[in-house]
Amino acid sequence: MALLVTGSIGIDTVKTPHGVSENCLGGSAVYFSVAASFFAPVRFVGVVGCDCPFDLADVFKGRDVDLMGLEVRNGSKTFRWAGSYHGSMNEAKTEGVELNVLAEKPPVVPAAFADSKFVFLANTAPALQQQLLEQIHNPTFIMADTMNLWIENSLGDLKGLLKKVHALVINDGEARLLAQHHNIISAALAILDMGPEVVIIKRGEYGSMLVDKKGNYFILPAYPTTNVKDPTGAGDSFAGAVMGYIAKQGSADVGVLKSAMAYGTVVASYTIEQFSLHGLLDLNKNAIESRLGLLKDLITF
Amino acid sequence: MALLVTGSIGIDTVKTPHGVSENCLGGSAVYFSVAASFFAPVRFVGVVGCDCPFDLADVFKGRDVDLMGLEVRNGSKTFRWAGSYHGSMNEAKTEGVELNVLAEKPPVVPAAFADSKFVFLANTAPALQQQLLEQIHNPTFIMADTMNLWIENSLGDLKGLLKKVHALVINDGEARLLAQHHNIISAALAILDMGPEVVIIKRGEYGSMLVDKKGNYFILPAYPTTNVKDPTGAGDSFAGAVMGYIAKQGSADVGVLKSAMAYGTVVASYTIEQFSLHGLLDLNKNAIESRLGLLKDLITF
Repeated sequence: MALLVTGSIGIDTVKTPHGVSENCLGGSAVYFSVAASFFAPVRFVGVVGCDCPFDLADVFKGRDVDLMGLEVRNGSKTFRWAGSYHGSMNEAKTEGVELNVLAEKPPVVPAAFADSKFVFLANTAPALQQQLLEQIHNPTFIMADTMNLWIENSLGDLKGLLKKVHALVINDGEARLLAQHHNIISAALAILDMGPEVVIIKRGEYGSMLVDKKGNYFILPAYPTTNVKDPTGAGDSFAGAVMGYIAKQGSADVGVLKSAMAYGTVVASYTIEQFSLHGLLDLNKNAIESRLGLLKDLITF
Repeated sequence: MALLVTGSIGIDTVKTPHGVSENCLGGSAVYFSVAASFFAPVRFVGVVGCDCPFDLADVFKGRDVDLMGLEVRNGSKTFRWAGSYHGSMNEAKTEGVELNVLAEKPPVVPAAFADSKFVFLANTAPALQQQLLEQIHNPTFIMADTMNLWIENSLGDLKGLLKKVHALVINDGEARLLAQHHNIISAALAILDMGPEVVIIKRGEYGSMLVDKKGNYFILPAYPTTNVKDPTGAGDSFAGAVMGYIAKQGSADVGVLKSAMAYGTVVASYTIEQFSLHGLLDLNKNAIESRLGLLKDLITF
């Protein structure tokens, strides 16, 4: 079933203890789409400036990613992000942001995409997430991401959005910030009270956790690797595989969500083993299935 | 099979967001023994001063804990620890320590305990851990704990000890400190290079992880609870249940170790739900088995 994603396309400069990657392709919608494309066709909605040096059609070549919703905006500049990772590399330090086209009006969802059943609203201003969502007629399952910037500066908009989505995927520290609880379970339960049926908490090197309104809990570790080159896009490729798998199954039942998170964990583990998109672009379904088997083994007693 | 523990007996004062517990019974060997006693008979070796207000025979009443190795030392004072927990309560802030009797010579291992097959060396100076170990004739499986204090001040002694034990159980941050690696898998592998066959890393609210020299990995979450009153003793009761289960099975094969860690996770989750030893003392085998089932469910996909 059709999966729509809206999110950023960026020009990233990333520094980690393993090297520097300058002016490479990034952005939440890009990582998400490559990850999701292993599981389901993707409808892509995003905007770049006319300065964008990347040909997304080329990047997504051989993948079922429909770029009808990609807007190249004249007179605007592409979003840029520079960041670095240190120590245990759990969190990026933002060195510079140029919102550029992301600070303007959102892209338009093409009429042909308005019947999308599965929707992922990648991290952006919650007011824009709501405007994008309003253009989709009758979605079955909507998942949103957010970040500390919006929790701190646009809490009202974010709380409005949370009443309209089925699921929120959010980082550990941001969940605590949004819910004003130190205990992560209390934080998850408080977020469920704000609207969504399901909350998925991303915990970096510690993995991820699901809590839903029916009282289900699910906790998965990250795949253990000594080879963490660049964590950029880990969360977006996790979400991409999660939503791709859900769209493929045509269901967001808790059993499907659990397997979806396992696929998300595996795909994200490949993302961080190389700089930029390379870990994802080199990936294939066999490698995903093989690491999924290892993940299952290492949590079984 | 006989399980011997040596470690501290303390008078604790603990402050958490949920209250204060003043001058209550604590200490690594005490938490360990109550936890282990759900699975196997325990041989207890430890020392208090003549000021100790607690009757351990009374505390362990109805449990198979042999106190032949408990020394009440005339003219000495009992170990005291004061600490507080804040925020996510993952780490104790030490407010005061009086080593007292722990800074003197170690207790003697009774001759009747010298044939113990399973040995746990709870956290103390690694030179003392070695002296205690030398009094045991032919142990099958030895596990040690340690902490940042010894990593920073007695690294030579600690490295000597690591060549003589089968397993090290250690906190997350302390593993990184000992191994000088940020990546936790790299840290675990570096610790295996120092001697032990197995390393078990305790990750607080994130659970625990095992890595061994045969290439086995095992990762378990903590049991999710919103009710964290006092984390004191969580690590020691984790280790107590782990070693108790191993002694009961008479084997430390990796399959046994995995189940042992699951029991450790469950027992520790009860410890932290009440102040001091109360969570452990109120516990029974049915409650352990029931939460073990829930733990298994919440990691299965």
